[in-house]
Amino acid sequence: MYCVIMAGGSGTRFWPLSRNNNPKQLLNILGEKSMLQITIDRLLKLKQVEDIFIITRSDLSTQIKDNIKGVLPENIIIEPEAKNTAPCIALAALRIAAIDENATMGVFPADHLIIGHKEFEKAINSSIDIAKNNQGLVTLGMEPSFPSVAYGYIQHEGKSIKSHSNVFKVKAFAEKPHLGLAKRFIKSKDFLWNGGIFLWNVNVFMNALDKHMPELYDSINRIKKCLDKGDSFDEIWHNISPESIDYGLMEKTDNIYVVKSKFEWSDLGSWNVIHEISPKNKEGNTIIGDGMIVEGNNNFLQSKGQFIALLGVNDLVVVGTDDAILVVNKERVEEVKKIVEYLKDNRENLL
Amino acid sequence: MYCVIMAGGSGTRFWPLSRNNNPKQLLNILGEKSMLQITIDRLLKLKQVEDIFIITRSDLSTQIKDNIKGVLPENIIIEPEAKNTAPCIALAALRIAAIDENATMGVFPADHLIIGHKEFEKAINSSIDIAKNNQGLVTLGMEPSFPSVAYGYIQHEGKSIKSHSNVFKVKAFAEKPHLGLAKRFIKSKDFLWNGGIFLWNVNVFMNALDKHMPELYDSINRIKKCLDKGDSFDEIWHNISPESIDYGLMEKTDNIYVVKSKFEWSDLGSWNVIHEISPKNKEGNTIIGDGMIVEGNNNFLQSKGQFIALLGVNDLVVVGTDDAILVVNKERVEEVKKIVEYLKDNRENLL
Repeated sequence: MYCVIMAGGSGTRFWPLSRNNNPKQLLNILGEKSMLQITIDRLLKLKQVEDIFIITRSDLSTQIKDNIKGVLPENIIIEPEAKNTAPCIALAALRIAAIDENATMGVFPADHLIIGHKEFEKAINSSIDIAKNNQGLVTLGMEPSFPSVAYGYIQHEGKSIKSHSNVFKVKAFAEKPHLGLAKRFIKSKDFLWNGGIFLWNVNVFMNALDKHMPELYDSINRIKKCLDKGDSFDEIWHNISPESIDYGLMEKTDNIYVVKSKFEWSDLGSWNVIHEISPKNKEGNTIIGDGMIVEGNNNFLQSKGQFIALLGVNDLVVVGTDDAILVVNKERVEEVKKIVEYLKDNRENLL
Repeated sequence: MYCVIMAGGSGTRFWPLSRNNNPKQLLNILGEKSMLQITIDRLLKLKQVEDIFIITRSDLSTQIKDNIKGVLPENIIIEPEAKNTAPCIALAALRIAAIDENATMGVFPADHLIIGHKEFEKAINSSIDIAKNNQGLVTLGMEPSFPSVAYGYIQHEGKSIKSHSNVFKVKAFAEKPHLGLAKRFIKSKDFLWNGGIFLWNVNVFMNALDKHMPELYDSINRIKKCLDKGDSFDEIWHNISPESIDYGLMEKTDNIYVVKSKFEWSDLGSWNVIHEISPKNKEGNTIIGDGMIVEGNNNFLQSKGQFIALLGVNDLVVVGTDDAILVVNKERVEEVKKIVEYLKDNRENLL
């Protein structure tokens, strides 16, 4: 399997810790290693891995080259600008097809939490089997542990395929549901979380692209010609319409399989998730870095640069960096983008 | 009148803005001037003022000399260590008595808010009349505008003295009351706020000290002898028991008058008071310095050094400095000392 790690995200949800030039995938939010390095290390532990590629924004490439271990510098693929996941994956597929047009290709987000390597490896092995034998597009589906409204869902047919008890044909993709719907999803047992991990034969993927996203397929072929001649493909890329792989391809294709995966998973989508998985004292408080909490409950406090003291407050996320501090009610962490939007217009230096 | 400004307080209530070497009286919390400078300027506007003295801690004296205008460097009196208000005022009285043993002496806190100069001048004029003619100890009492539980009260006899309709004999001093009692105080109309401003003939004061605080009076006389010989009085001072002027003298003396004063007054005892007197937007938020508040109400945000963003939070005081940030529920601002206590043992550099 040739792996592609998508590491181009902007990670505004973790402002002020995450910045334009230091997005979530490059942060050590889980400890001593960056999310990207953790993802690389996870893949390097798989026997099936032939090579690993990283696809990212040009402004992050130097930083990634300088800071990661286990991926060759020439394996870092540059997107000239962000175009969502479909063009990103197509560009990576082009690179892999040039090495082996019959290769198995796995696509992995750079910044997700996965706990349980055996279960992860089992899911990958099943995916490779399906990609090789059934010639379908494969995605991993995580067994939901609660009715999340922050994740998309994959509905499967309820009955596994004959060869693998953990693999199902996909019936439909569902966007992030409201809570009532999420609860029904959980109850039905035919719904899994969509974790954005994909696996396929690169040739099968290219054919699906030709069928369902012909314009993108055409652009990718023209980019191939540029690359063969050593020309810039920036202009072709610039004219590509942004599209997600879910919406552009997966939802429109028949031959999709989901591998029911039992590892613990999170997209680490907000400070609340970090609080959830962090050690807490008996008041439910987490302190990372330099600070104290007096007579408060259920707060997440992270500080770098200054001492932060909380007194008589509950349910807050407080994050401090050298030049910016965030104080947000835990119920509102999803709205940090409102601050980022304001800063775009007024204080770009803080992004 | 010889004025004494008491400027030795530690001002921990305004941590992290106030520090050991930068207490409340030296902060520009009301704008461009320090509280001490505002107090000096207020006194300089009074025709009756002969000279102004400042009494303070030795570690603040250089900073005060360098930063204030309108007081001669030789008029800065140093307390070797903090001993509460009675010894402090007695030491200042000694200095003034050496100039004129029949002088009128006024004592003023360095860090209170007074709005309404005419009313202030009127109260001072009445006080001087009483001190000169009735030979009593005089204190200013502010008409309470709400049932404060943060202030002490002065109960008077209800009927003014014949010569001045705004002057009353004092019946009793009351400590900070609970809310029910404060409401009864307000209703009775015989109670005024105790603002810690005193005025008297220095000889009358010394006699009262001799009568009610004989040990302190004795120490002061011994200090006089040291000063006459040019010796250090640190050891005598060290052995003085700390005591407030209210408890040690005013509550025990008969011949006390209160001047009912109509200027707007506050001891600026907490961040809440600063919020109260600050301009607010229609959500009740105040922002001083560098920050923003998104979808929150009734917050006070002051920042120096970093950008602070509040999102979806209400009723918070958030104060940022270069090295420390405070986030406190408005109902709990009085408890900032709990943080200061912790820092004393663990992080003295932040005090």
